[in-house]
Amino acid sequence: MAENQTNSKQKRVDSVQEAASEIRAILQKHGLVETLVHRQDMPRHDLVEELVHKQNVAELKNKLDTLHPADIAAILEQLPLDERMIVWNLVKADLDGEILLEVSDAVRETLIADMDPDELLAATEQLETDEIADLAPDLPDEVIADVFRSLSAEEREQLHAALSYPEETVGALMDFEMVTVREDVTLEVVLRYLRRMEELPPNTDQLFVVDRAGTLRGVLPINALIVSAPESLVSEVMITEFVSLRPDDKAEDAAHAVERYDLVSAPVVDEKNRMIGRITVTDIVDYIREDAESEMLGKVGLRDEDLFSSVWKSARNRWLWLAVNLCTAFFASRVIGLFEGSIEKLVALAALMPIVAAIAGNSGNQTVALIVRALAFSEINRANARRLLAKEIAVAVLNGAMWGTVAGLFAWWLYGNVALGVVMFSAMILNLVVGAAVGMLVPLLLQKMDRDPAIGSSVLLTFSTDSMGFLIFLGLATIFLV
Amino acid sequence: MAENQTNSKQKRVDSVQEAASEIRAILQKHGLVETLVHRQDMPRHDLVEELVHKQNVAELKNKLDTLHPADIAAILEQLPLDERMIVWNLVKADLDGEILLEVSDAVRETLIADMDPDELLAATEQLETDEIADLAPDLPDEVIADVFRSLSAEEREQLHAALSYPEETVGALMDFEMVTVREDVTLEVVLRYLRRMEELPPNTDQLFVVDRAGTLRGVLPINALIVSAPESLVSEVMITEFVSLRPDDKAEDAAHAVERYDLVSAPVVDEKNRMIGRITVTDIVDYIREDAESEMLGKVGLRDEDLFSSVWKSARNRWLWLAVNLCTAFFASRVIGLFEGSIEKLVALAALMPIVAAIAGNSGNQTVALIVRALAFSEINRANARRLLAKEIAVAVLNGAMWGTVAGLFAWWLYGNVALGVVMFSAMILNLVVGAAVGMLVPLLLQKMDRDPAIGSSVLLTFSTDSMGFLIFLGLATIFLV
Repeated sequence: MAENQTNSKQKRVDSVQEAASEIRAILQKHGLVETLVHRQDMPRHDLVEELVHKQNVAELKNKLDTLHPADIAAILEQLPLDERMIVWNLVKADLDGEILLEVSDAVRETLIADMDPDELLAATEQLETDEIADLAPDLPDEVIADVFRSLSAEEREQLHAALSYPEETVGALMDFEMVTVREDVTLEVVLRYLRRMEELPPNTDQLFVVDRAGTLRGVLPINALIVSAPESLVSEVMITEFVSLRPDDKAEDAAHAVERYDLVSAPVVDEKNRMIGRITVTDIVDYIREDAESEMLGKVGLRDEDLFSSVWKSARNRWLWLAVNLCTAFFASRVIGLFEGSIEKLVALAALMPIVAAIAGNSGNQTVALIVRALAFSEINRANARRLLAKEIAVAVLNGAMWGTVAGLFAWWLYGNVALGVVMFSAMILNLVVGAAVGMLVPLLLQKMDRDPAIGSSVLLTFSTDSMGFLIFLGLATIFLV
Repeated sequence: MAENQTNSKQKRVDSVQEAASEIRAILQKHGLVETLVHRQDMPRHDLVEELVHKQNVAELKNKLDTLHPADIAAILEQLPLDERMIVWNLVKADLDGEILLEVSDAVRETLIADMDPDELLAATEQLETDEIADLAPDLPDEVIADVFRSLSAEEREQLHAALSYPEETVGALMDFEMVTVREDVTLEVVLRYLRRMEELPPNTDQLFVVDRAGTLRGVLPINALIVSAPESLVSEVMITEFVSLRPDDKAEDAAHAVERYDLVSAPVVDEKNRMIGRITVTDIVDYIREDAESEMLGKVGLRDEDLFSSVWKSARNRWLWLAVNLCTAFFASRVIGLFEGSIEKLVALAALMPIVAAIAGNSGNQTVALIVRALAFSEINRANARRLLAKEIAVAVLNGAMWGTVAGLFAWWLYGNVALGVVMFSAMILNLVVGAAVGMLVPLLLQKMDRDPAIGSSVLLTFSTDSMGFLIFLGLATIFLV
């Protein structure tokens, strides 16, 4: 194991969790000390407490100084507000900007609330313009004005550009750290040029070959630069078949391109094919994660929520969704209300009706999941939509017949009423068909309205399968049984 | 726009959709021809039809030859089975392997079913060993045996290794295309060595510095190689502080590391710190996507489903989930059955009870979504779990009081019965607390049992909020109203 010693700095994937526990342990000691100070208000203890306190703070600070900004961000997210603020105030100021970028929106708000304008301005000074643009929505207006004043003319233009593109577009994700070269020089000249830069921007897997007007002529992969003869011309080695993006392309499409063509970086050009920025796989990884996350939360009507935000703030974050669902539940309740006479005569209906509604909801949600995924990959088009709808309905009829038989037999056996079983069976088939049709059409409709089909579909589906389930089952029962 | 002409090969992100429409158009022509041939069985037409047919096939083949394997894969996924097979048989054989890697599991099955063992063997010969390992589960045993025979001893060992790690681990995701160098040579020597390779493996952003025993000593970023003086030694330029992975690390943790530290590649080492492979951001992007997708489908009890699989196959894919939900629905139905006497006396209960169940289900699902996300980022630990549970319950009480008041007033106004309103109000609060507690504890429990908390939580939650909702509401009503 002697080899391991030389590699003691190698970072393991679980190192964040270890660091987090250590920090919690120190905070706990710290917390204990603070409580002691508060409890025993005896002046002769002050000095000792003060010393212990200082020691703990120093220990915490040392630990924090060894951590990567992304790790500190992860740790801040899992600390309750009071402890989070202690840690945040001990973090080296020159990491502030990076950390603010890494934390979730909700946690960022709590950190920014704790900083004064000077600190915020200092934090932005450590960042690239595209990163400042990511923070901008959370910064106070006066800080933004100061930031603009502190930038060079070129950076100011970049920041303006980055801020002008809507979220979820390539323009909002792109950065400006691209290295450009001319096509009429040799690789040796390029290498000399790069050597003068001392460090290349992260994710530089290719250089962008532009002409005097900034028009993109090709890309020069770093790997080709290395393996080709130094006396070759850029124009001989560069690749002219490559993927390029426009700033108003959807981020989703850029993500698909990066995924499909295994890109590390891709040029962003304007309509005249002039180079204006680049997209990197790092941006795309963050985008995919955030997108999956906001979709998962969006499905239950949530915006990003700090795990440790106040009860009041959390409750409000959840209201809209509950209010919408309460309305649909009231509606379903009124559908049942229409048949109170029937239920009074045959109370079994009350016990059986939720089954019809629930299974159609479940089955419809399966259709929604499949259609949403297919839409995300643009797999549905006019040519195959009708065919898919027919298939979903056929599957619903088949499953309806099958599980309707089970449910019908259950009703018959339980209440000794064959006709009740037949009504149950029929209602199950019909409502599963409703679920399939709504589960297919609602996502398509939302997509057409340029809304995220993953987000609204489920509410509308449950609304339909509940209301229609009650209507169909109680309606059939009223006609044939009561 | 003259500049654009030189860049006509630049690929735009929407090019796949265009290609897909073109191919559908050609297929349609093709389909028409086939129908014509079938309908008019007159021999004198044969020749003409044959010609038109051949022309269409050639057109289709030409179009396919211009496409990237990933684009062909995307197009195959959106074609119904019969058309998919026509296209698949026209694809250049040397792209088969790449395409099989890119398509979804369900579609891959349909393509492999159409290939004979020789074709499959030929397809694997175009792939790296780690890629063959990805295909292996879908290949017939005899093909696997042939594949092993066709490999070199080193590759055979790699394939064995790759196959031996469980899915969702770093070992299953890693590849073996790493370039290694020694620390006691100059950068100039390294550059000469690379130049002899003609091409570097994709995602080569760093070389791995190993000693004679294969032990990892450091990493040499390609960018450092380029910007440093050629006469420097590798040991002077290499970085010794870097992230390394183990083959049995969870893929999820590797994804977090790539995301946090913005990695393009990372070394995979064994317990003695010997280099055995590497993880690239390309693998991670695919993993994150597939993981998000299988989670989305898993939530509604689906495994990957080919959009165009047969009705029978689709129906079966959806059974287990429907069966489980039918059981929970039966259970909830029996809870209602316990109170049939009360419902007979006060039929309003039947109309109001689904409201109590539904809102607690919605509110509980919000808790589930937040907890599942927090678990994915390891943000929950023993230290803060109790605090979080208390918070979730407080939010539930607050929201229960608020929406319970609305629902209670609704019940009062509708049925002119104050006591009914009070029961409604109390049941809402209590059941929202049930939803919060279950929504918090179930994901934690599933995580502890090493199961994906995103997948089972929702069923168990709805089961609880339905059954308990009916029990609480009807129970309170029976005690205080009937």
